[in-house]
Formats: sequence, C-alpha cells, structure tokens
Amino acid sequence: MTTSLASGVSCATPLVETDRVQLGHGSGGKMSAALLRDRFMPLLDNPVLRQCADAAVVPVEAGEIAISTDTFVVSPLEFPGGNIGSLAVHGTLNDLAMMGARPKFLTAGFVLEEGLHLDVLDRVVAAMATAALANGVALIAGDTKVVERGRADGLYLNTTGVGLMDGAFRPRPDAVQNGDVLIISGPVACHGMAIMSAREGLEFEAEIRSDSACLVPLVERLRERVGSAVHAMRDPTRGGLASALNELAATSGIGVLLHEGAVVVPPPVAAACEMLGLDPLYVANEGVLVAFVAPDAAPEALAALRSHPLGTRAAVAGHAVSDNPGLVVLRTTIGSRRVVDMLPGDQLPRIC
Amino acid sequence: MTTSLASGVSCATPLVETDRVQLGHGSGGKMSAALLRDRFMPLLDNPVLRQCADAAVVPVEAGEIAISTDTFVVSPLEFPGGNIGSLAVHGTLNDLAMMGARPKFLTAGFVLEEGLHLDVLDRVVAAMATAALANGVALIAGDTKVVERGRADGLYLNTTGVGLMDGAFRPRPDAVQNGDVLIISGPVACHGMAIMSAREGLEFEAEIRSDSACLVPLVERLRERVGSAVHAMRDPTRGGLASALNELAATSGIGVLLHEGAVVVPPPVAAACEMLGLDPLYVANEGVLVAFVAPDAAPEALAALRSHPLGTRAAVAGHAVSDNPGLVVLRTTIGSRRVVDMLPGDQLPRIC
Repeated sequence: MTTSLASGVSCATPLVETDRVQLGHGSGGKMSAALLRDRFMPLLDNPVLRQCADAAVVPVEAGEIAISTDTFVVSPLEFPGGNIGSLAVHGTLNDLAMMGARPKFLTAGFVLEEGLHLDVLDRVVAAMATAALANGVALIAGDTKVVERGRADGLYLNTTGVGLMDGAFRPRPDAVQNGDVLIISGPVACHGMAIMSAREGLEFEAEIRSDSACLVPLVERLRERVGSAVHAMRDPTRGGLASALNELAATSGIGVLLHEGAVVVPPPVAAACEMLGLDPLYVANEGVLVAFVAPDAAPEALAALRSHPLGTRAAVAGHAVSDNPGLVVLRTTIGSRRVVDMLPGDQLPRIC
Repeated sequence: MTTSLASGVSCATPLVETDRVQLGHGSGGKMSAALLRDRFMPLLDNPVLRQCADAAVVPVEAGEIAISTDTFVVSPLEFPGGNIGSLAVHGTLNDLAMMGARPKFLTAGFVLEEGLHLDVLDRVVAAMATAALANGVALIAGDTKVVERGRADGLYLNTTGVGLMDGAFRPRPDAVQNGDVLIISGPVACHGMAIMSAREGLEFEAEIRSDSACLVPLVERLRERVGSAVHAMRDPTRGGLASALNELAATSGIGVLLHEGAVVVPPPVAAACEMLGLDPLYVANEGVLVAFVAPDAAPEALAALRSHPLGTRAAVAGHAVSDNPGLVVLRTTIGSRRVVDMLPGDQLPRIC
C-alpha cells in the first residue's frame, strides 16, 4: 500500500542548514525535531518538556486552578523594553495574577513565517525562558507551525497559563463595591507608545520603553498585606486604562470616578501621544495594574505596592461610586467632568 | 494629561456593520466586545466564559492534570469532513487522551485576518462548540487578535486543553515494551489527502473526507477493558503513521516491526496518494490512534476498539521488538523489509 519511500521524499524540503525558518520546520519530521532540539530545548529544558509527550502531566492539589490564554501579534517583534516572547509570558502571567492565581505552568504555540531569521526566534525564546524562570513558572508544552512567506508577519505566539488559586484571595471583576478606592500601580501609556515609536521609526527626545513586566510580585505584596480587601484587579493592556475601567464598571455595575491629576504619564510618553493625537487613557500598558480596594485598607495597599520597584509611583486615582453605574467619569485637572467611554475600534492595532 | 477624547477617536475604525473582520475587532474596544457578544457567546456560552475575567477559575481535585497546546494553520479552513474549528478541538482533546487524561477544559486563541468573512468565523466557532459539547468539554477562555490583510491566511487558531489524569491508566510514549502488540484503530491517510484534494481542487472518483474525530470514546473503552495493559498511545497526525511510530520507537528505545498488509488505506485515498506521489505512511490522520498493548491483552483491546464506530476497522499491525532499537521496520506484502525513517521536512505543509 505504500509507494516507495523515495517518492515520499521527492517533494520534501531538503535538509539544509540555513539561518532562516523553512516550511520543513513545521513538518513534524526531522527538521521539526531539530528545531525543537537545537533552538527550543537548550533554553526551555525541564523534566516535563523533555518527555516530548502529547500532553504535559503535572501534579495539582485539590482546589481551583485559573486558566488564561492570549495570542500575541505585536509588530515589531522586538522593541525597547522587550520582545514578543517576554511580552507574551508577562501578559499571560499577569492575567492569572489579576484573578489572584499564582502562575505555575505555561504553554507556547508558535506560528512561524517561512523566512524568519532564526536568530530572532532565538532571542524570542530566550526572553520567554528568562521571563518564565524569573517568575517560577515552567513552560511545559509547546507547538510550532510554519506558514508560507507572506502568510504571517514573522511570528505569532499564543501563551496559555495555568495558575493555582489561594482560597482566601479572590479578586473578581464583578466585585467592585461602592466606595472602593481605585489604585493605579504606576505610569501609563508606555507600552503602546514604545510600540508606536518602534514601528514608525519615530525619534523622541528620550527613548520610550515598554513597561512590559510581570505583576506577580506586586500582587503577592497586596495578597500578604491586605488580602481580601482587594476586591478587583485588572491590567489595562489593549484599550488602555479607559477600557479596563469601563469593563470593571460594567461588570460590577458601579460607576468609576477617575481623577485626571492622579494618572501619571511620563513626559516623553505624553509628548509622543500629543504629537500623534492619541489619548494616553486608551494606550496599552503591560506592567501596570489597577486595583479596587476597601477604603480602610487603601493606605496599606498603597504602601504595599510602593514597597516594590514596579510600584514606587503607585497612586490613588479615584474610587467607585453609586452614580452612573457602568460608566467611567473623569474629573479633569480644571474640575470639569466628562464620560470616558470605550473606543469603538482601534486606536493602535497590533500592540500586543 | 489627556488630549480630548475626540482626538483619540479620530483614527479609530468606524463602528460600521459589515460582513467581514475589521482591524477594530481586535482593538479591545466596543467592536471587540460586540464580536464576543454577537459571534462567540451565543455559541460558546457557559458560566465560566460569561464572567469575562482575565482568567477562568475552575475546580480540580487533587491529583494530576494534563496540558496540551496546538496551533492550527490548516489550509483551506473548511474541507470535507470538518473545518479548522472542529479539527482544533478534536486535535487537542486527542492529545490529552493519548496520555490517558480525560479532557475537561479548553481555551481558544484566534488570529483573524482583516477581511475574513464573518460567516466563515461563525461556522468555525459553531464547529468548535459542537465538538466541545459532544465530548463534555467546556471552552472556558479565549482571545482574539486581528492582523492586517495579507498578514495571515483567513484565521489561525490555538487550542490548549486541560484534562484530568486517572491514576491507574498511564500510557506514556517511553513505556513501549519489547513484545507489545501494535494496534491501529482505523484506516490511515484520509485527513491529509482530504486537505490536499480540497486545496488543489482535485477531483477523485469518490470524495475523500477527513477522518477528524475525537478519540476520547475509543480511549475510554481501552481504559475500561484493558486499562494499564495499554503501555503507549499516539495519534499519528502531522508526519503520519511513520513519524508517530518513529517517535515512540526512539522515546521507548525499542524497535517497531510494522506489517504493511495490516495497514488499511481506503482505495480512493491510496489512488490519490499514488497519483500525487505521496506515501500514505507519512500522510496526516486526525481520527486514528496507535496503541502498544501487552500481548495477552491485545485481543481484548482490539475487541474494545472494534466495539465503537470509530474503531470497526482496528487491526493488529505489528509489534515492538528488541532488534533495531529506535527504528521502524516495514515488512512489505511481498516479504521484504525496509526501514521507515522520519521524513526530513515537509511532505504536505499546513495540513493541520
């Protein structure tokens, strides 16, 4: 029932060494195995991944797990402050942390474009490995597909994370309460403007760097010092602070009053936004969290955030109100008020 | 610190109704929310997904979980016997099942190309929902990104699955033992040739349909009737039967003797392979499993597989041997022997 092996090989990609991704790297054959062995395993090696099984098997204790998935299509792949690999790991760990979970396991699914320089892939995988290791997370399963030149844009990367819940600490997007204090952990709009600058080749006075960072240490400090007084958290990524607050307002059925003067935008970032006509409230962040905290715990929560390098500029930026449920209202520095709506569509495509 | 909201809106995608994916659908703003609300939730709705949290939180019992990730880039998106949605769900559930896990949870990460017809997306999501529901699996988290026209090929889809292990049943790719009987659950090469036919617009006498199917029911029957006598399983997808057997031979350090006459290739599939010069042993399957079973349990395992519609043509197709560890040797119908190696690169790109 088989034709000769030679006929099967006749249309196969030749096994030549090059410095670029070839379609054969996605074949499931020897080139796929070599890519895994030579490019991924040296950086990501761990006992579970080494089994090369169809699925990774890991122990869990009884309780609850949190699962989050995110696909990254950021352009360019490398930017000041990170690359798609570190961004993906941070982004997925942050999503788990926002629910109060402690991230434990991570999977990676690559779509590689034929022709991608393998040294770019190496840097992306290295950044993933570093980010995972730094946060005590094991990358335990992966998958690589290759598409023809012109059918992707270098590479796309899905990361899916699994974390373990801790019974007592359960922030939820629908749990914001009237009177809760809104704390923002740091300056906003850096990631989006770093990507825009890199993409458009814009030169500003100071380099704008992405704030891409793992928020787990900040969340751990909140957990330790104020615990269940943290009612809700979110990391304001795609769509920025405005979208994250709108989502929490809608899900919890409360209003949010946001004090413009308390929202920190670094001057170079503000200047870049001004020049490009972009509103920093809608620009993506990748290393900032917003938390709604019970009023009596707010000072301690603020102190907890400020005790970590990522949170030194944490500030109270508003509170939850019973007026205007589902809406975010900005009190501007001159005292006027306006509704901060969600944008209909894109301000900045492919930011993460 | 904010410019006026109007300036932020000025470059946003207008909120118009069209029948195609637009960049704004990936914005994290109103269009993203509408896509989720109108296209995904009606088909996929469940209590966990409805929370719209950063991560899905689900209960687990103490023990072990299995995690598998897979990205699908199949071209075309729809083909006889399925589409990328059903293929992704089946593929991920099958990977979990091959490790003996019972699939429970699934995540989906979409990369959509601007311009994709929304009715194609609807059919893909509907197929995912049907496949998940039919197998008792909940899709609990998802993510959607949109890239510009010409930066993808319709859509790419990552599915990551989580399953629960059952202590007693633990097939592993490194556990094949000398003397184990190799059972193949059904005819091979159907998926790959269905894709090739659809992609190239080839007409054969009979339509070739993908065998895409969830193998969980077959695995359940093996679990119930022969349990731990199943030493290793694999679904021979990308790279086909030859690659899967080579991987098991290498990982377990045994040789595999494969009987050509016992490998079933449906006549239209064999004819298509012959015409295209492809070796069916290397053509992808998406609804077939191979199992290495202890010799005394092999008849019962075969009967268990044959008792399910997916396994009516299950057959003993060889066994594990101590000769030639790491190699797969084919005994042809005329009695000659040849090594069935892994292919270097691609026979058929973008088959899954």
